[in-house]
Amino acid sequence: MREEFQAELATVRQLVVDMAETVRRAMSEATQALLRADRSLAEAVVAREPEVDQRYRQIEERACDLLALQAPVASDLRAVITALHASADLERMGDLAEHVATTALRRHPSPAVPAELRPIVERMAAVADSMAATITSLLARPDVARAEQFDRNDDTMDDLHRQLLGVILSDEWPYGTETAIDGALLGRYYERYADHAVNIAEHVVYLVTGETPN
Amino acid sequence: MREEFQAELATVRQLVVDMAETVRRAMSEATQALLRADRSLAEAVVAREPEVDQRYRQIEERACDLLALQAPVASDLRAVITALHASADLERMGDLAEHVATTALRRHPSPAVPAELRPIVERMAAVADSMAATITSLLARPDVARAEQFDRNDDTMDDLHRQLLGVILSDEWPYGTETAIDGALLGRYYERYADHAVNIAEHVVYLVTGETPN
Repeated sequence: MREEFQAELATVRQLVVDMAETVRRAMSEATQALLRADRSLAEAVVAREPEVDQRYRQIEERACDLLALQAPVASDLRAVITALHASADLERMGDLAEHVATTALRRHPSPAVPAELRPIVERMAAVADSMAATITSLLARPDVARAEQFDRNDDTMDDLHRQLLGVILSDEWPYGTETAIDGALLGRYYERYADHAVNIAEHVVYLVTGETPN
Repeated sequence: MREEFQAELATVRQLVVDMAETVRRAMSEATQALLRADRSLAEAVVAREPEVDQRYRQIEERACDLLALQAPVASDLRAVITALHASADLERMGDLAEHVATTALRRHPSPAVPAELRPIVERMAAVADSMAATITSLLARPDVARAEQFDRNDDTMDDLHRQLLGVILSDEWPYGTETAIDGALLGRYYERYADHAVNIAEHVVYLVTGETPN
């Protein structure tokens, strides 16, 4: 019974790690599609989004079965709760990648991101990708010290978001309202993606220590 | 033991219902503050936001204790899982109310919402408030039929959001970029608030039936 539980728990945890890799790839490809106005890549990201939702439901179902059938305690219980919480955050990160891809599609064949915003969007996307890589690794191999330092990345993201809005709101903005709104919403998508990554790092701290960081 | 479990479960469920009432009031007051450029009301909403976070952590902790100490099964397990999920959605709804209040503060003493957008924002806020009222009542007294019909409200919200963007993106928009972005983001806040309410209605369906609606 106990070995069976550990095997199933390991499977659920691996499903969460796979899901983290999937949403990392989704945001990376959505960004490429956005910056290159690559329609087929954007469509591929949108087409794969239901797989992320399905993975979320699968993890939720198996985690609930583990709770119901095995009544885990202590660190095993925290591992199941962490899988539930992390997969919910990852599901939202997948949605945000889809929003980026949809923005690329809506403006295609025009580029949604004008030249003035490209360097900032590229940096936001690079921070988002690095954060997604770190949480994938934290979910595979929990590390409290690394998880606790994780929200520094989020400060970088917030700075970039402010810079982005600064460019859009400057008097010299020549691109009109629609491009301004797309730029502001894109900024928000990357920022929210980073916020969910921070949540996941907090779940990892809880997993190991039993404490939720403030 | 069993009676003790039921009493604690009832307490946790009541905490979730209270939290739903709190975030309903937060969004309602944030909207009033926004539309009347009422600084002190906006500040009050922002000041109370940490209480919502704290309530979330409290529910999470007590739900995890219930899982660890009592190992509930079947509908009792689903009730605990529902409390965990619903409180996470409510926490985000509280954040969104704070974003609306912060928008009011950032533009104060100017109104953040120009005359052309007021009727649509008022309707979005009314739909959001009605959805928050329904989920509060669904969490207090689960009702599958009512929960399953709930996402119709979300269609109304999506229509209003499209209308809002239509006004902002029309050639006659006279208010400049900052007001356009604020309008677009406000639309997104109400829409996301409604999305979280739909999630909660889905949790209620799961609570009663054990099935997650697609």
